[in-house]
Amino acid sequence: MSFWKSLFNSQPSTSATTTAVGLGSQAALERDSSTEGQIIFSKDKEIDVYELEELCDAVGWSRRPIRKVKKAIQFSFLVISMWEQRGAYRRLIGFSRATSDHAFNATIWDVVVHPEFQGQGLGKELMRQMIKELRSEDISNITLFADPHVVDFYRQLGFRPDPEGIKGMFWYPNSR
Amino acid sequence: MSFWKSLFNSQPSTSATTTAVGLGSQAALERDSSTEGQIIFSKDKEIDVYELEELCDAVGWSRRPIRKVKKAIQFSFLVISMWEQRGAYRRLIGFSRATSDHAFNATIWDVVVHPEFQGQGLGKELMRQMIKELRSEDISNITLFADPHVVDFYRQLGFRPDPEGIKGMFWYPNSR
Repeated sequence: MSFWKSLFNSQPSTSATTTAVGLGSQAALERDSSTEGQIIFSKDKEIDVYELEELCDAVGWSRRPIRKVKKAIQFSFLVISMWEQRGAYRRLIGFSRATSDHAFNATIWDVVVHPEFQGQGLGKELMRQMIKELRSEDISNITLFADPHVVDFYRQLGFRPDPEGIKGMFWYPNSR
Repeated sequence: MSFWKSLFNSQPSTSATTTAVGLGSQAALERDSSTEGQIIFSKDKEIDVYELEELCDAVGWSRRPIRKVKKAIQFSFLVISMWEQRGAYRRLIGFSRATSDHAFNATIWDVVVHPEFQGQGLGKELMRQMIKELRSEDISNITLFADPHVVDFYRQLGFRPDPEGIKGMFWYPNSR
């Protein structure tokens, strides 16, 4: 149990782990606005779930019941959405959320970046914002479950698979 | 993403996955009460955190700040405690809790059974109660992070490590 406990007892890092601006209610990422829209991050949970489903459609995820998506957002500890802003027009281009006990542990779910905006470092920036916010809430144990093709993506952000042999496990209905 | 989505879309199992009695506010496990105290399960979050810390001490876990333990219990979606009852005397002998988005995902944390009560199937019963309660809340994706020596314990309960190559990952402060 030493691994868990060392994390439980650890203090928040005092060194900055991201170069991004902090999220008050929202934050903007600097880009060349002459050619690209500005990228905005927001912690606001009031997200149009139909727009979110469109984003999830764009990466090929199956549809989920809207009622449950709304509930999941409401009961997530942290939600960060990423938007492209061009003038008055704002488009949802990324999303992530985390469940938490508000004290020790957080688990990140539903990380998605629109295919048109992938490969520009925006997914990494989204995750850095998630980590920064969770750390600012004194959450020391930040976890996630990564599909095989994104393990290296998360590794670059400081996540380690199976530390000290700890295994992520999923319960399967009717598997017994 | 097919794995996640098939779970998101799955319906709760209609077949019973445990032989235990259901938890109203609490449930009792039948034992030979002439020689052993009765085992009681409870979902009540009003737990004496000092008694819980004693239990965690007994299995060698490091102390955690009481304030944070209280908060973690308060913001857990599900807490199940296990008690030995002998007459009017009730002793905390097991504990588990889960974080959740109340819709799709739950993650089980802090599973502990007092050493004097290990090896009697009580840990399995505690976990079956957790699974049953989470399923009754329509949570389809039940996850946990297992230390190497308890992977087989969870496997027997229907948990699978790294399904379809999905990796449990932990963020390490200052690892970048």
